[in-house]
Amino acid sequence: MKRYFYFVGVLLLSLGSVATAQTPVYLDDTKPVEERIEDALSRMTLEEKVALCHAQSKFSSPGVPRLGLPENWMTDGPHGIRAEVAWDEWEQAGWTNDSCMAFPALTCLAASWNPEMALLYGRSIGEEARYRNKNVLLGPGVNIYRTPLNGRNFEYMGEDPYLASEMVVPYIEGVQSNGVAACVKHFALNNQEYDRYAVDVEVSDRALYELYLPAFQAAVQRGKAWAIMGAYNRYKGQHCCHNQYLLNDILRGEWGFDGVVISDWGGVHNTVESAYNGLDMEFGTGTDGLGVSASDAYNHYFLAQPFLDLLKKGEIPESVLDGKVRNILRLMYRTTMNRNRPFGSFKNPAHALAARQIAQEGIVLLQNRDNVLPIPLDKTKKILVVGENAIKMMTVGGGSSSLKAWYEVSPLDGLRARVGDAAEVVYARGYVGNTDGSYNGVVSKVDLSESRSAEELLAEAVGLARESDYVIFVGGLNKNSQQDCEGGDRIAYGLPYNQDRVIEALAAANPRTVVVLISGNSVAMPWADRVPAIVEGWYCGSEAGNALASVLVGDVNPSGKLPFTIGKQLGDYHAHALNDPLVYPGVDHKQVYRDDIFVGYRWSDLQKDSKPLFCFGHGLSYTTFEYGKVSLDRKQMTAADTLRVRLTVKNRGSRAGAEVVQLYVSDLKSALPRPLKELKGFRKVMLQPGESREVEFLLDRTSLSYFDDAKHEWVAEPGRFEVLVGASSGDIRSKAGFELK
Amino acid sequence: MKRYFYFVGVLLLSLGSVATAQTPVYLDDTKPVEERIEDALSRMTLEEKVALCHAQSKFSSPGVPRLGLPENWMTDGPHGIRAEVAWDEWEQAGWTNDSCMAFPALTCLAASWNPEMALLYGRSIGEEARYRNKNVLLGPGVNIYRTPLNGRNFEYMGEDPYLASEMVVPYIEGVQSNGVAACVKHFALNNQEYDRYAVDVEVSDRALYELYLPAFQAAVQRGKAWAIMGAYNRYKGQHCCHNQYLLNDILRGEWGFDGVVISDWGGVHNTVESAYNGLDMEFGTGTDGLGVSASDAYNHYFLAQPFLDLLKKGEIPESVLDGKVRNILRLMYRTTMNRNRPFGSFKNPAHALAARQIAQEGIVLLQNRDNVLPIPLDKTKKILVVGENAIKMMTVGGGSSSLKAWYEVSPLDGLRARVGDAAEVVYARGYVGNTDGSYNGVVSKVDLSESRSAEELLAEAVGLARESDYVIFVGGLNKNSQQDCEGGDRIAYGLPYNQDRVIEALAAANPRTVVVLISGNSVAMPWADRVPAIVEGWYCGSEAGNALASVLVGDVNPSGKLPFTIGKQLGDYHAHALNDPLVYPGVDHKQVYRDDIFVGYRWSDLQKDSKPLFCFGHGLSYTTFEYGKVSLDRKQMTAADTLRVRLTVKNRGSRAGAEVVQLYVSDLKSALPRPLKELKGFRKVMLQPGESREVEFLLDRTSLSYFDDAKHEWVAEPGRFEVLVGASSGDIRSKAGFELK
Repeated sequence: MKRYFYFVGVLLLSLGSVATAQTPVYLDDTKPVEERIEDALSRMTLEEKVALCHAQSKFSSPGVPRLGLPENWMTDGPHGIRAEVAWDEWEQAGWTNDSCMAFPALTCLAASWNPEMALLYGRSIGEEARYRNKNVLLGPGVNIYRTPLNGRNFEYMGEDPYLASEMVVPYIEGVQSNGVAACVKHFALNNQEYDRYAVDVEVSDRALYELYLPAFQAAVQRGKAWAIMGAYNRYKGQHCCHNQYLLNDILRGEWGFDGVVISDWGGVHNTVESAYNGLDMEFGTGTDGLGVSASDAYNHYFLAQPFLDLLKKGEIPESVLDGKVRNILRLMYRTTMNRNRPFGSFKNPAHALAARQIAQEGIVLLQNRDNVLPIPLDKTKKILVVGENAIKMMTVGGGSSSLKAWYEVSPLDGLRARVGDAAEVVYARGYVGNTDGSYNGVVSKVDLSESRSAEELLAEAVGLARESDYVIFVGGLNKNSQQDCEGGDRIAYGLPYNQDRVIEALAAANPRTVVVLISGNSVAMPWADRVPAIVEGWYCGSEAGNALASVLVGDVNPSGKLPFTIGKQLGDYHAHALNDPLVYPGVDHKQVYRDDIFVGYRWSDLQKDSKPLFCFGHGLSYTTFEYGKVSLDRKQMTAADTLRVRLTVKNRGSRAGAEVVQLYVSDLKSALPRPLKELKGFRKVMLQPGESREVEFLLDRTSLSYFDDAKHEWVAEPGRFEVLVGASSGDIRSKAGFELK
Repeated sequence: MKRYFYFVGVLLLSLGSVATAQTPVYLDDTKPVEERIEDALSRMTLEEKVALCHAQSKFSSPGVPRLGLPENWMTDGPHGIRAEVAWDEWEQAGWTNDSCMAFPALTCLAASWNPEMALLYGRSIGEEARYRNKNVLLGPGVNIYRTPLNGRNFEYMGEDPYLASEMVVPYIEGVQSNGVAACVKHFALNNQEYDRYAVDVEVSDRALYELYLPAFQAAVQRGKAWAIMGAYNRYKGQHCCHNQYLLNDILRGEWGFDGVVISDWGGVHNTVESAYNGLDMEFGTGTDGLGVSASDAYNHYFLAQPFLDLLKKGEIPESVLDGKVRNILRLMYRTTMNRNRPFGSFKNPAHALAARQIAQEGIVLLQNRDNVLPIPLDKTKKILVVGENAIKMMTVGGGSSSLKAWYEVSPLDGLRARVGDAAEVVYARGYVGNTDGSYNGVVSKVDLSESRSAEELLAEAVGLARESDYVIFVGGLNKNSQQDCEGGDRIAYGLPYNQDRVIEALAAANPRTVVVLISGNSVAMPWADRVPAIVEGWYCGSEAGNALASVLVGDVNPSGKLPFTIGKQLGDYHAHALNDPLVYPGVDHKQVYRDDIFVGYRWSDLQKDSKPLFCFGHGLSYTTFEYGKVSLDRKQMTAADTLRVRLTVKNRGSRAGAEVVQLYVSDLKSALPRPLKELKGFRKVMLQPGESREVEFLLDRTSLSYFDDAKHEWVAEPGRFEVLVGASSGDIRSKAGFELK
């Protein structure tokens, strides 16, 4: 620039030099991140530090504008990138560039039992978040499926801590490969929606460590999650968003978490607890009752002015604030300030393929008598589709995971597109479900209003069923309040809208009646033995109808397995079997997990008189798999050894297909009561017709341990163990015993 | 990830592999940009390419989501980063993170005559744009000051093409050093607001090349501007946003521009012309009359569906589209896809210092009889401030450059803060200007309502003036419609609101009456010989009051020089002297620039009978400078030579100060009529009391050339020339002659 000026005015020197200073450490990419964090921290004012710790809008928090540290922008997940909302309102902002790809709900992902699908999911949704300039994805969710009434189960990964752990880790790795933080939620014990803002959960340390924490621990220690979201509920009397035990002792203390703890939206209730008990960033605090303007509301957050006041008075030392700021800065360096992160992509056909692929691997064939499925199109003239869920948009509703989807292929549209001219596909609604097709300002594309009576609808469907070759009933739950929806629990285990009656009438009218359940939870199926086939179709997002059609006609051989137990009735779940309101749903904001570690198959395995309708890990294929005998590489092992487990699995049918080979461990004798068996390994194996393949598992002491409350440590107790390998928790094909010395 | 899965299902292979492919060329930072552009282009569909060519919202255009090519986000400039507006509405979006630093208007920057200030300005505003995630700054503006009635002169750099060129280049370099494109506007001939959407400007090639194009050419060729904005008006019958002559022949053909041409908002009128005549990106097209929804409106843009239709029909070849897409991709690679660009910063105190520094160098001391300024605070008890502009927010209004400023220090507040307890500062409004304190939804922070009559206000001011030591009248124009405001021209040359009467009354009441004009244009000053001091205070942005106070009390020795001529009356400007509506403002959307190359001092230099009130380049200091004799290193030169011009300048006073030494060239005899002199060099020199310094200029053939219409080339005609060096165009201190062989 020398040619442009002759002399730098001395007059101006007092106002600062024009010359660029040397790159400061906090902006120097060649310096270690921790050094950059300390440098940035050292330059910040108290006010700037406090500003980092709370929201400035519904989904963003400030950076440090003066220093050029970027803002943090969150997006709801975990199934797609939420549409832009107004600055301080939940209403959508009316942008036209934010219609996202809707991925299958996490129950469906878990049902794939394929960690590679989790990696693909995470990578794909992470790319969408990155393209939309979000640096934190509020997901995935790994709360344990304790009761089928939990309105938010569809966002989680089922009842088993091992399965959830194996699936959450690659999801996180996929998301974070984009320079977008996965924010694993809801930490912890947020296992129901009822009274979620207040309920204080009492649980044994053993159940906590064996069931409710492992997926979070895996997320942190193996997945290296950069963010954790605190839960709404309380534990030991403290809200989980500022909880000494969960956040300080366990998350940071025992697990060494170095990421950022973000509150759930409105989950913060106390400045001093928030200061000391592990929270870094406060979001969504309600300030409606304070009588302040929207623009001023954020200053009233617990970690805003009230925090600043205490810091200034010296009642809270600045070191407490500095700890939070270090975590937030670390988030920035990992995301927005990582120059090497990719640019992401949005509405990419590869994402559509991913969504479809995940859905196709997650859909579970629960029952298929007489091989009524797949539908043989060459011998089928007329297919009747019945049920509201065949046409209802399921990407809309359900709470914070509601999406403005790029598109959503309904089951009916998907089937019609696939069947084409091969057969006639007719539709009858069959029953009236919802007249409300809107959620949060987004209106469903399908008009669900209905003037006919229930009798008329049923008569129409039954009449058509009699003259059809196949009847595909597509029902289940939906994303309305008190079904699969945030903010409340289901009020009953049965299907809503009298669907049972419709299914029974259809089954009576047509022997080839297939029931497809669209849901994120199990439901009662009193008609199960009257229909030949049942499919758990989940909420599959944009490609839902295409994926379902592929399974129904046999383009895809189903390979999903249940990530949770489907009981015959509510009493098949321990939390309900105890029939104690203190166990569920809680009394006076207090709840005791008396079901302890015996949740899901851990409990139903112990019931002599009642078996679940479909057990954990269950899922059929259009082919059959033969399991060979389990062999172990040793009969005895020490706590330092690794046990090698091998068996051969063979496809005995004429179709290619994938089997999820499941390995459970049984502690034959132990000081503390243990479940009959616990999942400790699984492999999804693709086999051509007639092909066989050896599957190998490795076990070590962690596979054999239980958590000893008294010692507060994991114990692998010497003695006899058994390895059980099978096609589900209820279908063990081979066993072998060994001894831990 | 190998540990998570056993086998990649063959079933899935048809749906695409999970494995990451090798980085494609368009995302490969190690590949040359032009290669990456071709690779990206080759992957795009026709629809994706067309989508790049037009807006998706008020200020953004899409990228290619599928490929991960980011969106383009524009921000109005050139004085600060415009607040976020709603997606498809001009209303502000209500964000709370977008209050920007307001920098001085570009007239003030030009008045600094200091290219280093332009670099500082560009760098600072570029940092703000970058932090706000804008990759195109809609500025700077370099339309020539042809008439003082042009409502938008305050956004430009004055009447001289050389001065504007020297100032625009570093501004661009500063902005673009942030990875933010400067979009130089409005190309071209948009020298008035009256009838701007339609007026067809006829101008000689000579005036075009000598006056109206040089700053744009410098911006493109020396500043390497990445973007150019087309003007609203027409030239040779075509709108400038799709103009064969300006965009294809000159900008791209003669100058080799490889950046992107962006329309002014609503400046596009024709699909075929837009396709062929150099436009790349269409913004702001009005679709209100089409009866389409807001979300659909953007598909109706000329470069949207209508363009796509013609491409699909083959009526426009795809190569035409590809040319545009290459330019847009180049913009992306230079900005959003440049991994090395800095992160910017916002509301940085360094930006406040920059704004203040620029203002302090730009404020012009027009008159200072008896050294009435600076105000000697040690001998002053009471200072009266009079005038609405002492309290009115000037960052609000004026059109697209209106800002939501972080703060704005008014002249009154700035003076009060500086004077402190040293003297009493009282305020009287003096006259009623505007009752409307709002613009575009932003309400001025000052209540400008007034119930008293003009007589009462004047009486109050005059009464106070009599008992004060100093009277500082702060008036001038403002940002209301038909003053310094986009969208219309001024309707009169005189001051509005009867300010002349107030000034005269104050001058009669107090001999130490100082007039401070806040404006971006010249005004009539019939009272000039009745007040001792006049200061041109411009629109100085956030730091306005502080900068002005520094000058008034002498902390800063003024060093600004006028970037345009201030005539006594409108007739002192050639466009008005001709008194022909076809010359100004045009008749039936037609205008002829009969003033040709004789604009500003180029014309007033030729007037024997009337001299301007203050000539181009004029500006006083609190010290005096002595100019030595000009010496040349040769008496003769050829067109290949460089002539070295030297002289010594000395500070003869007792205060440090900066002088802008101006070099003009006079062609003593030429085939075509030429101005008496033309600015061809300047240096701002800071000198301590008694210090002297040698100043050197280099001249070559370009400094001596005129544009020959007939030959369509620059001609340096052999013969006698003279170098004139002085303190303004009207204050030549030394001359020297030489001969071009």
